[in-house]
Amino acid sequence: MASKCYNSQIKGVILDITGVLKNGEEAIPGSVDAISRLKQQSNLQVRFCTNETSVTRRSLVESLQRLGFEIEEKSVFSPIPAMCKILKQKGLRPHLLINPKGVSDFCEVDQNNPNCVIVGDAVDAFSYQNLNNAFRCLMKMEKPLLFSLGKGKYYQDNDELTLDVGPYMAALEYAAGVKAEVVGKPSKTFFDAVVEDMGLLPRETIMIGDDIVNDVGGAQDCGMLGVQVRTGKFRPSDENHPIVKPDAYVDNLACFVDLMLANISVKLSKEDI
Amino acid sequence: MASKCYNSQIKGVILDITGVLKNGEEAIPGSVDAISRLKQQSNLQVRFCTNETSVTRRSLVESLQRLGFEIEEKSVFSPIPAMCKILKQKGLRPHLLINPKGVSDFCEVDQNNPNCVIVGDAVDAFSYQNLNNAFRCLMKMEKPLLFSLGKGKYYQDNDELTLDVGPYMAALEYAAGVKAEVVGKPSKTFFDAVVEDMGLLPRETIMIGDDIVNDVGGAQDCGMLGVQVRTGKFRPSDENHPIVKPDAYVDNLACFVDLMLANISVKLSKEDI
Repeated sequence: MASKCYNSQIKGVILDITGVLKNGEEAIPGSVDAISRLKQQSNLQVRFCTNETSVTRRSLVESLQRLGFEIEEKSVFSPIPAMCKILKQKGLRPHLLINPKGVSDFCEVDQNNPNCVIVGDAVDAFSYQNLNNAFRCLMKMEKPLLFSLGKGKYYQDNDELTLDVGPYMAALEYAAGVKAEVVGKPSKTFFDAVVEDMGLLPRETIMIGDDIVNDVGGAQDCGMLGVQVRTGKFRPSDENHPIVKPDAYVDNLACFVDLMLANISVKLSKEDI
Repeated sequence: MASKCYNSQIKGVILDITGVLKNGEEAIPGSVDAISRLKQQSNLQVRFCTNETSVTRRSLVESLQRLGFEIEEKSVFSPIPAMCKILKQKGLRPHLLINPKGVSDFCEVDQNNPNCVIVGDAVDAFSYQNLNNAFRCLMKMEKPLLFSLGKGKYYQDNDELTLDVGPYMAALEYAAGVKAEVVGKPSKTFFDAVVEDMGLLPRETIMIGDDIVNDVGGAQDCGMLGVQVRTGKFRPSDENHPIVKPDAYVDNLACFVDLMLANISVKLSKEDI
């Protein structure tokens, strides 16, 4: 990885949160210190990019701060603000199938007489009844319109693989005969907004995540480098993925930061010569 | 339809149950009498073919008999017996995600240390927890093996469209990266068994159902005629379906039987000449 990162003159790092910084409610060993070193020992810009919609951005950041992470709310990008912008631009009124904890983020949005459905990682709210309600809402529309806050297959929740929003997006697509518009990773619009916020070009940016398709593949499709950690939902079979080939694998975030900082030292010493 | 049915010398009729005979727990007007006339006024063989797995075959037949239908258990084909046969032939031990009312049909099947997952129309048992359990079971297998008892998108339950097994099959396929093997309609193996039971050829058989893909398209793919009723889950947009073109549409089962009996009269009178 060293040579690639050096050659591509990386100026910004985008980090996934679940599976990279933490698993469930626990910090992944070494990750708190890794973020601290990345911020203090480099000039790299750092952003966090998550499809997490089960909590508000504020409470997500607060819980990460309690774990010891140096993280500010403005550096975290999640799908709900992007979704609200689309709703406003297009005058859409959503029926929500999302985590009840995320509903307050839509409190300013008109939800009467819905003309679109939004599916997020609703966890236990993914009941048969709720999926039926979302489905019936789609079937009543002249032209069904479905948005999905991410399309991840699953994530690592403490010790278990747990279904993400993607399978439920697929269920609604199948039932109603529609194709969902994905808001969040791996949507190009979503990644572009993060890169733009850093004032960088995609090729100056590196994404690190545990999801080979949505983090790594999504970033690569946008022209960034994509690195997969061997934590979170990483599975050995990812290293033989038929489509996505990460620019590098690292055992965990701490290793990634070690390499990034070493590259910077190499770069500085070469420039010093 | 008349000429087609006459020309093809139909000798057997296969009927879907939900959406053709009944909606929810109510007989569709005219359908009880239609079955009676079909059996008494023709020499046509009659079979019933359903993907219903929420009740045992016996209690399904009993509930139809209570509604007044002339129907015997041996004339009803449903996916569970076909599934049990496959499990036995292949020595498979299933993890079941099906309606609790159908579980007793698998009581003789070893379900320890499962090496396949079976998804059926589990209705309220399609909780997030239960779908996660089925998903985790698949992910623990070296080569995940998923069976789906049908692949219908939805059905008409009383006044509402209601999600069928298909969307949940699609969710598990997406999450675990597998392709389900469908047992029940529209599987050719399943239809062939019904036709064989009648001792007929597919071209001597007509299927009538409310599901344009799984009833009509499935039957046509097996060489039978396929007729769609405008009851049950029928929707006007079905008449512009991009792939499946039924051999005929009829307003309901009673109309279908009227036409079949009229054709037989025509045929008889021609033969009499």
